[in-house]
Amino acid sequence: MTYTKTVPQSVEWKNTHISLLDQTKLPLETVFIDLFTIEDVWDSITALKVRGAPAIGITAAYGLALSAQSYKSLSIAEFKEKLNQDRDYLASSRPTAVNLIWALNRLVASIECAKTVNEAKTTLIHEAIQIQVEDEEVCRQIGEHALSLFKDGYKLLTICNAGSIATARFGTALAPFHLAAQRNVNLKVFASETRPILQGARLTTWELLQSGVDVTLITDNMAAHTIAVKGIDAIIVGADRITANGDTANKIGTYNLALLAKAFGIPFYVAAPKSTFDISLQNGSEIPIEERNPDEVTHISGVRVAPEGVQVYNPAFDVTPNDLITAIITEAGILQGDLGLEIRKIFGE
Amino acid sequence: MTYTKTVPQSVEWKNTHISLLDQTKLPLETVFIDLFTIEDVWDSITALKVRGAPAIGITAAYGLALSAQSYKSLSIAEFKEKLNQDRDYLASSRPTAVNLIWALNRLVASIECAKTVNEAKTTLIHEAIQIQVEDEEVCRQIGEHALSLFKDGYKLLTICNAGSIATARFGTALAPFHLAAQRNVNLKVFASETRPILQGARLTTWELLQSGVDVTLITDNMAAHTIAVKGIDAIIVGADRITANGDTANKIGTYNLALLAKAFGIPFYVAAPKSTFDISLQNGSEIPIEERNPDEVTHISGVRVAPEGVQVYNPAFDVTPNDLITAIITEAGILQGDLGLEIRKIFGE
Repeated sequence: MTYTKTVPQSVEWKNTHISLLDQTKLPLETVFIDLFTIEDVWDSITALKVRGAPAIGITAAYGLALSAQSYKSLSIAEFKEKLNQDRDYLASSRPTAVNLIWALNRLVASIECAKTVNEAKTTLIHEAIQIQVEDEEVCRQIGEHALSLFKDGYKLLTICNAGSIATARFGTALAPFHLAAQRNVNLKVFASETRPILQGARLTTWELLQSGVDVTLITDNMAAHTIAVKGIDAIIVGADRITANGDTANKIGTYNLALLAKAFGIPFYVAAPKSTFDISLQNGSEIPIEERNPDEVTHISGVRVAPEGVQVYNPAFDVTPNDLITAIITEAGILQGDLGLEIRKIFGE
Repeated sequence: MTYTKTVPQSVEWKNTHISLLDQTKLPLETVFIDLFTIEDVWDSITALKVRGAPAIGITAAYGLALSAQSYKSLSIAEFKEKLNQDRDYLASSRPTAVNLIWALNRLVASIECAKTVNEAKTTLIHEAIQIQVEDEEVCRQIGEHALSLFKDGYKLLTICNAGSIATARFGTALAPFHLAAQRNVNLKVFASETRPILQGARLTTWELLQSGVDVTLITDNMAAHTIAVKGIDAIIVGADRITANGDTANKIGTYNLALLAKAFGIPFYVAAPKSTFDISLQNGSEIPIEERNPDEVTHISGVRVAPEGVQVYNPAFDVTPNDLITAIITEAGILQGDLGLEIRKIFGE
């Protein structure tokens, strides 16, 4: 069987513009929009048309490179000053996104030694593309390592969208599924819908259908029954932040799944690049948990589903303790056993 | 502090008609409708305006008694024949509801020895009221037993709506909360929204707000984090069917919570009347699990939230094994330890 499906890519450099998948339209419509100006890019990030830390960083980097192409008749000093202004403007589109600032600063740094405006313009494009190429390679390596843990016929459970469209391509927790589909390795994925924002229902199912992965949607509370009845072999999730001891903050509901994995005696894997580690934090208790707007719980698609005036608890993330994690799968390899020790090793300490 | 709130009652006999809470309008509107004819009753049951096995049985019983009052100039034999026809008609409103048939047959049996039509008419009303009174008393006893397990200040987690509006009054798993509110005992309840039908978000929060219970809504996947961070003291749920060994079928998501209770070392209670036990079944593996329409998962409030063509797994119930259940709370007392043995005792075997 020839592989005719496509692993979706949410951001692409098109020389005169950026092509961006409008993720707010998913899963009902697959719409790619063309961004021609820095304002288009700012608006897209602000309006959450692009989501996922790496994808946001890549989009912003392309936005900065794109804007720089339009500067005419400037000295290199003036060019650099204008670039700094654009960097600050784009950085304001989502001030809390660490990858965004990191990518923009990397572009600015890349032309530090540029002698001419033309040289700087070319360097910026190359650097932005390089950021995407590197991220895709990181995701592919994570996918390869993860896939080495799965046998043909395995049934896997995941939550949220640690996916191709949130990164350069392939994603993290979803990377092994895309690679398996390309190689006709049969993996059966159960996607937990991931209330309140429903990233599993809206994004993960869509993304896996694009690349031909066998995916089944369940609600979050069906996990235990599904593991028991369908014979789930392992659970794999992404991560928002991993501390020095391996404690992992990820989308709310992840901790539930880790405890279920332990109860059923199946492996629980975290897939994440090295950039997700924050080894300045010793353990998960130091990770602040954002509480979001109660409306996310009381309203779905704009329709109220709970009575006026009800109290709501809406934490965006939870923290899975390291002892529930079978392995952390990074581009640098599979970390297992003493996670704190393994993490110190890959960070060269 | 005087208790000024009201434990909601979904069905009430009003001599000339039945007052029924239209549960399809909750939580946005609190609408009581008046049912004057047997057709009104049939329509209400079919349209799911009344839900919960006991509440459906009570409504149907009142419907049969109401219809019988309108029979004129009949012999007692003709009256009984007409009653049988009405029984069959109402039974067809929801053929799978065991309580419905049971209540209707109980009314028919109650006039077996009636000599006159007038006597029969009175008996039918009394019998229907008696069914509601008995169910309310069962729920109150379950509530008393459950409340004896909770201390002032306890934080409890529940799922679905094992509530007052599903029964004569008070409910099963929610009964202790209503009793506590009446007595100014402070219990803090976390209601899991209960996807896909959202009975927790739509019904449990509304019901507990009516009677003044401190209730907070969470999504189902927040359970582990909430237990850990908020310090939940116990979990209490209802039951759809309990087998001879104590295995318990209940709304999907219950099994998740039972496993989390074990992981956190907190009690997991099932609250259910003796009528919920099916001791003809040895264990939970004999309970068939209904799979419902995929649209319940892919659509919320009529809005599609998942891509066209995605596979869906939508089991309505799951089965919690007896070893995860700390106690089963019935009107006959609190069953714990060897649940199979305790169940045999209350059924006199």
